[in-house]
Amino acid sequence: MQAQLIAVDWGTTSLRAYKLAEGGHVLEQRSLAAGIMHLPVSPRVIRGQACSNGFELAFDEACGDWLDAQPDLPVIACGMVGSAQGWCEVPYLDTPANVATLGQALHAVRSLRGVDVHIVPGVIERSRLPNVMRGEETQVLGVLHRLAGEAGSDLLIGLPGSHSKWVEAADGCIVHFDTFMTGEVFAVLSEHSILGRTQQRGGAFDEAAFDRGVQVALSREGESGPLSTLFSARSLGLTGELSATAQVDYLSGLLIGHELSALANTQRRRRNDARLPSIILIGNAQLCNRYSRALNACGFANVTQAEQATERGLWQLALAAGLIASR
Amino acid sequence: MQAQLIAVDWGTTSLRAYKLAEGGHVLEQRSLAAGIMHLPVSPRVIRGQACSNGFELAFDEACGDWLDAQPDLPVIACGMVGSAQGWCEVPYLDTPANVATLGQALHAVRSLRGVDVHIVPGVIERSRLPNVMRGEETQVLGVLHRLAGEAGSDLLIGLPGSHSKWVEAADGCIVHFDTFMTGEVFAVLSEHSILGRTQQRGGAFDEAAFDRGVQVALSREGESGPLSTLFSARSLGLTGELSATAQVDYLSGLLIGHELSALANTQRRRRNDARLPSIILIGNAQLCNRYSRALNACGFANVTQAEQATERGLWQLALAAGLIASR
Repeated sequence: MQAQLIAVDWGTTSLRAYKLAEGGHVLEQRSLAAGIMHLPVSPRVIRGQACSNGFELAFDEACGDWLDAQPDLPVIACGMVGSAQGWCEVPYLDTPANVATLGQALHAVRSLRGVDVHIVPGVIERSRLPNVMRGEETQVLGVLHRLAGEAGSDLLIGLPGSHSKWVEAADGCIVHFDTFMTGEVFAVLSEHSILGRTQQRGGAFDEAAFDRGVQVALSREGESGPLSTLFSARSLGLTGELSATAQVDYLSGLLIGHELSALANTQRRRRNDARLPSIILIGNAQLCNRYSRALNACGFANVTQAEQATERGLWQLALAAGLIASR
Repeated sequence: MQAQLIAVDWGTTSLRAYKLAEGGHVLEQRSLAAGIMHLPVSPRVIRGQACSNGFELAFDEACGDWLDAQPDLPVIACGMVGSAQGWCEVPYLDTPANVATLGQALHAVRSLRGVDVHIVPGVIERSRLPNVMRGEETQVLGVLHRLAGEAGSDLLIGLPGSHSKWVEAADGCIVHFDTFMTGEVFAVLSEHSILGRTQQRGGAFDEAAFDRGVQVALSREGESGPLSTLFSARSLGLTGELSATAQVDYLSGLLIGHELSALANTQRRRRNDARLPSIILIGNAQLCNRYSRALNACGFANVTQAEQATERGLWQLALAAGLIASR
């Protein structure tokens, strides 16, 4: 199969590049640590020009040989590469946003190779507490395309991570989303707070400790919120009820439990319906497994995980932008 | 007036020593940075003996000249000095605890000077999520003594800090308390998370930004909890609605607002009464002022601040222990 598109998922800590053929079929893929906060720094000559721009260097490292072999391949990229700290700041598009509106708003950066890199805008929902995302919109579009119109109001798309996103869609449009800083709060508390001092990290996933944390978040005591229950990760250690190795996954379950308990309450209120929506998760498989466990504990009965959401989303956006032709 | 007692408030980051006369009157006081995590390290000769024990060195620095002048002065100390990382671990006393039970459970450490340092135990409330405190119990006793039996079930004593404590008392006993890690969460998020990257710190207290954060925590959106609202400290910056200097106090108001909103809900539920209790705050005046503002916004109408709670509590405990005689 002939390559038709280079698709790049370029986030804060990593860069993933895909060479795609007809239908978004993945011919080859690569993963580099060259996220926008970890760009290469050693100057190099690219196509006869001395270059010290980290974005050019990372792009060349990831895709240079593909473009040497096929210089007319179109290139599309999503994620933090379009942020104020990225290669070029691409303004957010307002909700509701779909594959057509986003595909028509790609922003081209001309690389040293003479190739345009078409950057996908992020999405903003303007409200009293505005919400933004960059990269997740593309993954959501990849999932929505697969559902081919079957996505109704009984569906919620979850993207667990440092900043988890929960996205509601209607008629192929991203209409509303929320952000929870659960992953980053977990990381800074483990690394920099008193809770980390008694944790012993690096062991296998302790399912029982994780489930216990989730149950505490869902309990009567959990109604006081994470600022209150957090201290139990320490006090249960002091009383010998939680081992040093169990504390990490207990804290993880506690925070994810608080996130999902709030999510369930909000969903019931917004829908005015006790039934909870179906969930499709996108992201790191281990993290999605944790979220699946906790979602089930919170009463979300129908939880599935999506595959290849990013590359599918980028393919659809490239089609909508006319970078490639649909046959 | 003749000195009768040396009272020491010895916490994680600082040590405060008081020379007290009849009735707990403060003759002299000192503040050192020699908290149990910041002890002196340079060996010194104390009463003819070479010494490299940080606790001995700090104690001698704080109180040596007082004891030189009056070697028979009794010494009492509260706080983290009695923790597993302290001079000597003193087991927690269970709730309910009062000045008599705590005063009878002081633990003496013989210092190099031959003087006993009588350490006050902390208090533990054993429940599904156990709670512990060390030092705060003494401050609470200082306040309860001043109230002289007037403290009823309509009173809540608050001790804002890295780990805020909210204490319920009955008949002079500490009967229940909760912990919120608000102060430490604020610190680690400001110093180590993405929220800190856009904050400009060091300015004067921005009351409007603080109040705005409190209002968000109390709003409909706030019901999703701090893991969700936290992201607004960033997104409101991205949309230009919150300046870099305002972000610090907005985050502070947001977290304190979530703490106090949860506290108000829990109090209403526990008392089965829509009316909220009176509040007495103990602690750093600037922080207590922030809590007063937020408590008022949450509907707590009667909020006062206590003075000299620690030295009064230590005096009462020394009386109860018979270290000094009441005249």
